[in-house]
Amino acid sequence: MPAKNAFYAQSGGVTATINTTAAGVIETARKHRKHIGKVYAGRDGIIGALTEDLIDTSKESPAAIRALRHTPGGAFGSCRYKLKGLAESRAQYERLIEVFRAHDIGYFFYNGGNDSADTSFKVSQIAQTLGYPLVCIGVPKTVDNDLAITDTCPGFGSVAKYVATSIREAGYDVASMARTSTRVFILEVMGRHAGWITAACGLAQEKEGEGPHILLFPEIVFDQDKFLARVDDTVRKHGYCTLGVSEGVKGPDGKFLSESGLRDAFGHAQLGGVAPMIAQLVKDKLKQKYHWAVADYLQRSARHIASKTDALQSYAVGKAAVELAVKGRSGVMPVIVRQSSKPYRWTIGVAELKDVANAEKFMPRDYITEDGFHITAKCRQYLEPLVQGEDYPPYRNGLPAYVKLKNISVPKKLGAFKI
Amino acid sequence: MPAKNAFYAQSGGVTATINTTAAGVIETARKHRKHIGKVYAGRDGIIGALTEDLIDTSKESPAAIRALRHTPGGAFGSCRYKLKGLAESRAQYERLIEVFRAHDIGYFFYNGGNDSADTSFKVSQIAQTLGYPLVCIGVPKTVDNDLAITDTCPGFGSVAKYVATSIREAGYDVASMARTSTRVFILEVMGRHAGWITAACGLAQEKEGEGPHILLFPEIVFDQDKFLARVDDTVRKHGYCTLGVSEGVKGPDGKFLSESGLRDAFGHAQLGGVAPMIAQLVKDKLKQKYHWAVADYLQRSARHIASKTDALQSYAVGKAAVELAVKGRSGVMPVIVRQSSKPYRWTIGVAELKDVANAEKFMPRDYITEDGFHITAKCRQYLEPLVQGEDYPPYRNGLPAYVKLKNISVPKKLGAFKI
Repeated sequence: MPAKNAFYAQSGGVTATINTTAAGVIETARKHRKHIGKVYAGRDGIIGALTEDLIDTSKESPAAIRALRHTPGGAFGSCRYKLKGLAESRAQYERLIEVFRAHDIGYFFYNGGNDSADTSFKVSQIAQTLGYPLVCIGVPKTVDNDLAITDTCPGFGSVAKYVATSIREAGYDVASMARTSTRVFILEVMGRHAGWITAACGLAQEKEGEGPHILLFPEIVFDQDKFLARVDDTVRKHGYCTLGVSEGVKGPDGKFLSESGLRDAFGHAQLGGVAPMIAQLVKDKLKQKYHWAVADYLQRSARHIASKTDALQSYAVGKAAVELAVKGRSGVMPVIVRQSSKPYRWTIGVAELKDVANAEKFMPRDYITEDGFHITAKCRQYLEPLVQGEDYPPYRNGLPAYVKLKNISVPKKLGAFKI
Repeated sequence: MPAKNAFYAQSGGVTATINTTAAGVIETARKHRKHIGKVYAGRDGIIGALTEDLIDTSKESPAAIRALRHTPGGAFGSCRYKLKGLAESRAQYERLIEVFRAHDIGYFFYNGGNDSADTSFKVSQIAQTLGYPLVCIGVPKTVDNDLAITDTCPGFGSVAKYVATSIREAGYDVASMARTSTRVFILEVMGRHAGWITAACGLAQEKEGEGPHILLFPEIVFDQDKFLARVDDTVRKHGYCTLGVSEGVKGPDGKFLSESGLRDAFGHAQLGGVAPMIAQLVKDKLKQKYHWAVADYLQRSARHIASKTDALQSYAVGKAAVELAVKGRSGVMPVIVRQSSKPYRWTIGVAELKDVANAEKFMPRDYITEDGFHITAKCRQYLEPLVQGEDYPPYRNGLPAYVKLKNISVPKKLGAFKI
């Protein structure tokens, strides 16, 4: 069989290490010239495939591709664009195949979360139906750490390291100021449905009394009285209280706390920010001075403090994806398999896309303490290996030197397609 | 003259490198046993002196003091407690001298900002008036970078490196998502009265078109129409827009934007957060999807990405403070003197406390572009050397290993004093 080109796209929210995976895909593809011609990347993800907006990664130097390893964000652009079912979105799936056929693409690598695994699976189905030979590989990525089967998700370990480091550092600050000033500090972190990132904050507490003293998980219904009593108790005992709070904390009514209450001067609901809400509550009810931070995109783009373990795994899934592809495996996703926690040993396994598609992995209840306010030893044992090791980027003029690719377009061969 | 003990206290908001200065003071004092007996630290700053709550730093191992170099926060506690004029606060100043006399303290090192320089100066005056021999040295520290005379303030370079790195990283993220999702990203930073930290965000932009595209300084009155037009223009031109915004941005009425408008469900003014305000404005007027982050304490405690230049300078002022003291200089503060910007060369000079006390150094107008939205080449030339070099802390279990001192109290000799 002659070499076919490959298509690679980044999907959904980007991470500090999705480009590390891209480097793994492209560098490995370049070693398999017998099977893989050029790697075309979708500009802005799958939209690039639908609109035939392809980037020719062969125009990038080895040094530029190497620099992707340490560059956050999505180098080719990503998108939030979900393909629906095969019946509903038939025209789009057919268009994908049309574009792949026009550009002699025989490999489809889709780098994303649950939705992307689902899309990859459906693309493999439509290719079969249409009799177009296409190897479809899902490549895992999500800071939410909620993919099924894989032990952890590339991108998560680095967020975990960032939030745990940040809340530890802020804790040292608050502890110094508590006598006369701030006593309560709240860090809001991502993870709307699963509390993995919130749990990672808990790693910063190595001894009783150290912060974070309280974690608020999306999995645990917010109980205002119990919460305030715990904050009050912590301040009395330790002089201050630091909290890691998920953006997805919900009240007894099942609504996000962040959506309940704040209005601007015109009475419009104020969007975003559970941290300021909790802070206001602490001030109103406990009369404590507070500070709050919302890390938002900083947490998922903080390549400067990436976890080395995460960086290695992110690269490894990219490399494995290509190796599976050239072996002709299709409809699969490389996953991370934990062999042991102490010492930490992992390897790359293979999952069927249909088993990953649209499944969500929540925090097991026994990863959260019975009172709902912290992580258990079992959770710590799971999380700790994922933040091991530092993987610093190079610096230029005192700041991390990240790469911007040339992103040269592949000439179009087809007519326009409206998305 | 027999050796006298020294008193050291941390004052005001702590930083990523105030403990680096503490290490400079204590390690250098330990080398001057002929002049300096023990170094006593004030627990929670000057309050520790007033309440005779002293920490005996001689009980800490050399390794622990060394570890202070890379530990954020204030290891002995700090406070927001301003001594007033000599007439008004006479009892307090006299109490300080009483405590110093009781503990044979002949050196007073006060590590803080403008207020602290003022207090140090007043303490030196009262000591003279009361005929108590006391060497008074101010030691500079403030993330606000607003101290007079010194070229920069220890603590600032590290915040500068953190905010510039963070906004660059978030910019890579937003650029990837802009096609279908977030187009405007706002990072709120500290600096209520002076825009130095906001200016530091600007370092992340090395080429036209890169973020941050817009900076909002406390020095420049917020003009809503001009601002919205600029955001709109940037999104049209570059596809997205990232902004560094000072917490102290003021509207034409002279009030902080963050105080104007947000109400909770009960109609109470909502405290804090200019970023969500600006975000709401962008959404309402320009219909763009936004994200915002508030770094808050994370920025000033981010020892994991401290500037090496800042760490060296922070240590150097601590060391110089002790060297000045043993030479008998009093009523002074070691300062950083810039000898050249390219290549960057600096040395330690000496300023009179009375010249530093209560003066504030604002951003020169020619450090801000004429349109008020960015920094000039002159500003960049000033800022760039301050973020040079990395000074990583050691890691343990994947997280920065910071030290907690034993902080053993010196037995009290006096009665209580009500503060």
